[in-house]
Amino acid sequence: MTPYKELLWFRTAKRMEILNITPDVEEVVGKSGVREGLALVYPMHTSSAVYISDSDPSLTEDLASILSRLVPRGAGYHHDVADPKANADAHLRAVLAGHHVTLPVSEGRLDLGTYQTIYYAEFDGKLDKEIQVKVLGV
Amino acid sequence: MTPYKELLWFRTAKRMEILNITPDVEEVVGKSGVREGLALVYPMHTSSAVYISDSDPSLTEDLASILSRLVPRGAGYHHDVADPKANADAHLRAVLAGHHVTLPVSEGRLDLGTYQTIYYAEFDGKLDKEIQVKVLGV
Amino acid sequence: MTPYKELLWFRTAKRMEILNITPDVEEVVGKSGVREGLALVYPMHTSSAVYISDSDPSLTEDLASILSRLVPRGAGYHHDVADPKANADAHLRAVLAGHHVTLPVSEGRLDLGTYQTIYYAEFDGKLDKEIQVKVLGV
Repeated sequence: MTPYKELLWFRTAKRMEILNITPDVEEVVGKSGVREGLALVYPMHTSSAVYISDSDPSLTEDLASILSRLVPRGAGYHHDVADPKANADAHLRAVLAGHHVTLPVSEGRLDLGTYQTIYYAEFDGKLDKEIQVKVLGV
Repeated sequence: MTPYKELLWFRTAKRMEILNITPDVEEVVGKSGVREGLALVYPMHTSSAVYISDSDPSLTEDLASILSRLVPRGAGYHHDVADPKANADAHLRAVLAGHHVTLPVSEGRLDLGTYQTIYYAEFDGKLDKEIQVKVLGV
Repeated sequence: MTPYKELLWFRTAKRMEILNITPDVEEVVGKSGVREGLALVYPMHTSSAVYISDSDPSLTEDLASILSRLVPRGAGYHHDVADPKANADAHLRAVLAGHHVTLPVSEGRLDLGTYQTIYYAEFDGKLDKEIQVKVLGV
């Protein structure tokens, strides 16, 4: 069966913001017609990450805090000299958060654990960004 | 060929504990009948992670130390107020460790490097936890 | 269609070094004949990582700095006692950087965002190392 692809568009209100995109990904998997397989959820940008975590939305603030502490903004990065956007922190935080996820699809649906939620973390937002969902299987 | 799915169950003795699950995953790949493809090793929880590392078991203590230093327990997290389990550290450590892995399957077996070992890191244990292995290929 | 596998060989000049391997992976995907699917880019080692980031090469120095700060070399690791190579830092940095990536393949090509670049980060180099590219799809 031909893999199914769809692009989801998001624009965050803040520079760093984390959104629950579980319903959006579930809808794509439903449309794909794949009953058993894998779904790749893949940001087309390098200052964005998709990760799996608990359903409690307050955890997103905790992750944002941790990443801001581990990778402070403007801490003398070479990229901030090379690029006028000076967004090295955003690129580096995306690497630590993991960038993309590969999820199981079973019986025509995303096969997640009870509290598992798919988050899109944007580290250089207020711009249109796209996330590709690619579903492969039978 | 229909992808193969199996759930592995684990219960750690300690709150934070890292187990070598390579033989368990190898067995599932063997049973899947897939000769060439990919194996997703995916915890169904958000305080668990699966990662690839060296076969030396003492490295698991080093990773546990590093993650405990980068994400200390009870460091004023919003989630620790919202959730009576106060396990924000466990969720955040799982994100940094990477949550799940996608592994190559070749000639009917996991196609790992010589010293590569599959680890299940539990950050909020002493409970039954499941890890899904989904094998896709031909 | 049978998944396609190829091993890429690299040898870095320095112990820690990050290389742009995008053209190498693109070539394998082209040879695979897969039009729609997924490409796993998977180091066969535990002191190596593959990750996605921006095309600016100066960002690789920034990531190397951040990882060196988060996981200092020789900081009393158990592994450094157990293993004469004393390369715990290399193994732990590879876990934080993410180890491997799964990429979308569309219309016979890697389907990356405009500035996305595939990097191979070696944390214990000056040795021959191999990275497996496995392409699955139709």
